[in-house]
Amino acid sequence: MSAPTSAFPKRVTIREVGLRDGLQSIAQVMPTERKLEWLRGAYEAGQREIEVSSFVPPRLLPQLADAGEVLAYALTLPGLLASVLVPNLKGAERAIDAGAPLMLLPLSASHAHSLANLRKTPDEVVAEIGRIRAARDAAGCSTLIEVGISTAFGCTIQGRVEPAEVLRLVKAVLDAGVDRVGLADTVGYADPRMVRELFELVLPVAGDRLNCGHFHDTRGLGLANVYAALELGITRFDACLGGIGGCPHAPGASGNVATEDLAYMLASMGIATGQDFDRLIALRGKLAGWLEGETLRGSLWRAGLPKTMLPAAAVH
Amino acid sequence: MSAPTSAFPKRVTIREVGLRDGLQSIAQVMPTERKLEWLRGAYEAGQREIEVSSFVPPRLLPQLADAGEVLAYALTLPGLLASVLVPNLKGAERAIDAGAPLMLLPLSASHAHSLANLRKTPDEVVAEIGRIRAARDAAGCSTLIEVGISTAFGCTIQGRVEPAEVLRLVKAVLDAGVDRVGLADTVGYADPRMVRELFELVLPVAGDRLNCGHFHDTRGLGLANVYAALELGITRFDACLGGIGGCPHAPGASGNVATEDLAYMLASMGIATGQDFDRLIALRGKLAGWLEGETLRGSLWRAGLPKTMLPAAAVH
Repeated sequence: MSAPTSAFPKRVTIREVGLRDGLQSIAQVMPTERKLEWLRGAYEAGQREIEVSSFVPPRLLPQLADAGEVLAYALTLPGLLASVLVPNLKGAERAIDAGAPLMLLPLSASHAHSLANLRKTPDEVVAEIGRIRAARDAAGCSTLIEVGISTAFGCTIQGRVEPAEVLRLVKAVLDAGVDRVGLADTVGYADPRMVRELFELVLPVAGDRLNCGHFHDTRGLGLANVYAALELGITRFDACLGGIGGCPHAPGASGNVATEDLAYMLASMGIATGQDFDRLIALRGKLAGWLEGETLRGSLWRAGLPKTMLPAAAVH
Repeated sequence: MSAPTSAFPKRVTIREVGLRDGLQSIAQVMPTERKLEWLRGAYEAGQREIEVSSFVPPRLLPQLADAGEVLAYALTLPGLLASVLVPNLKGAERAIDAGAPLMLLPLSASHAHSLANLRKTPDEVVAEIGRIRAARDAAGCSTLIEVGISTAFGCTIQGRVEPAEVLRLVKAVLDAGVDRVGLADTVGYADPRMVRELFELVLPVAGDRLNCGHFHDTRGLGLANVYAALELGITRFDACLGGIGGCPHAPGASGNVATEDLAYMLASMGIATGQDFDRLIALRGKLAGWLEGETLRGSLWRAGLPKTMLPAAAVH
């Protein structure tokens, strides 16, 4: 095992995934108007990458049935890289037609999770990803293709997931011509040592196309896992405002790392993220009202910024 | 800034500090019998370093007025390194008389916190530590002396604390003849980069006498901070069952890292701590009952161990 690099990045992108990963596991359907208000609020808080919805069949996921409208609104916000999740070629065709800047394709490294989530084996998903790449090329459009390797650190159904299998799938999707790859701890099994070791395994193969870490905070290790990836030069992380989320096919999985806590950790470390804390916390307050009865997580909203990070600290 | 070492330690000690740091900020006095039950439960869960109480004047801290009884019981448990906090020479003399294996002396790196907490400047505390070392030598006893540098990463009263001041105080107490030094984020201001940089600054001076990290989880970074220190070879961490605790002179500070979550992170990383999860979680359940109305924290008790860490996982 090699040592992590000693220098931290100067800038990191937090991709807000609350509107998709967060809402997906919440039964109570959020009205479209509120989603647009959330989207605008996130944008105004400084977020420039947002996963806005998912092009899945509405009957499977009524919560995200308004994907087209939400994406259309996102496209009106200047400089926003909006992404949509697509589970298959059909979804990808909708994303391409709608002019999505980025489509995110989930690929489970766990065979069992892949069958439960997409009713396909991982290799069948890889083949579908090849067809999606071909469809994009045929359309002559610029929609980026990102693959998120889910259950990369273990699976609630299958248990252990071999790092060699993750590496094999990363190679396969890079060969299929995807633009970006991320590693996702879908069910909250990762620890920072696993993160270091798996990213170290994949980085020599994927290089800077490996540029996203997606961590759930199920067992309190979400931010420690981000830190371990950050030490290896990873500069994009998914997060959900208020730490909402989960996975319908991963029983017991709880939410993503909280956007506001991640933004705080990075800012405290001197790493720019472009987030405005006052706006983030205010938006979290609104979200708590919109999702009455749901559990929101995170620490910063309660504790506030340290005295050393308040605007007045400059005066001392 | 140098890179962290690449190898993780094989074994780490978790020191349970709930009976002192945890209870200290809880108004409702826990009966002595329950403290002994907690102590025995922690011991049976595998803990071999426990901070059992504090030799402060009972009128200042009625919660810990039974320090002598609790320590006497701890001394009956074979192989347990029991420690007591002592704020001054008088407390140290009581610890020495009682045969405490270790006494923990707090020294605030924040001048303002030092005055609020001990009514002494940091340099006055250093002088008192010199007198404590002399008293121990005069008594010819083997009580270890550990200094915890509190507010080492910032202070809710003073704000910023200079790393150079922390280093100066560490040198001063090592010169005064203490056996061990730890760095404490008393108020939850640390981030993992600060942890890396401060431990890197102090390690060349203190060597293996710097062997404890004490982190509060006020803003969700407790375990990330542990990980950053672990990467530098630190092998002892303070923690409180259920993440209870705070500091009466640090408004807004919340509890220590949760013992059970820390034990989980380390076990998942393949680092031995000797903790029995079933017993720890059962004890946490008892504690929640004993402290009705208090907020307990942590994640593992709710999420449970990953499937990959359950005894049955070996069968797969």
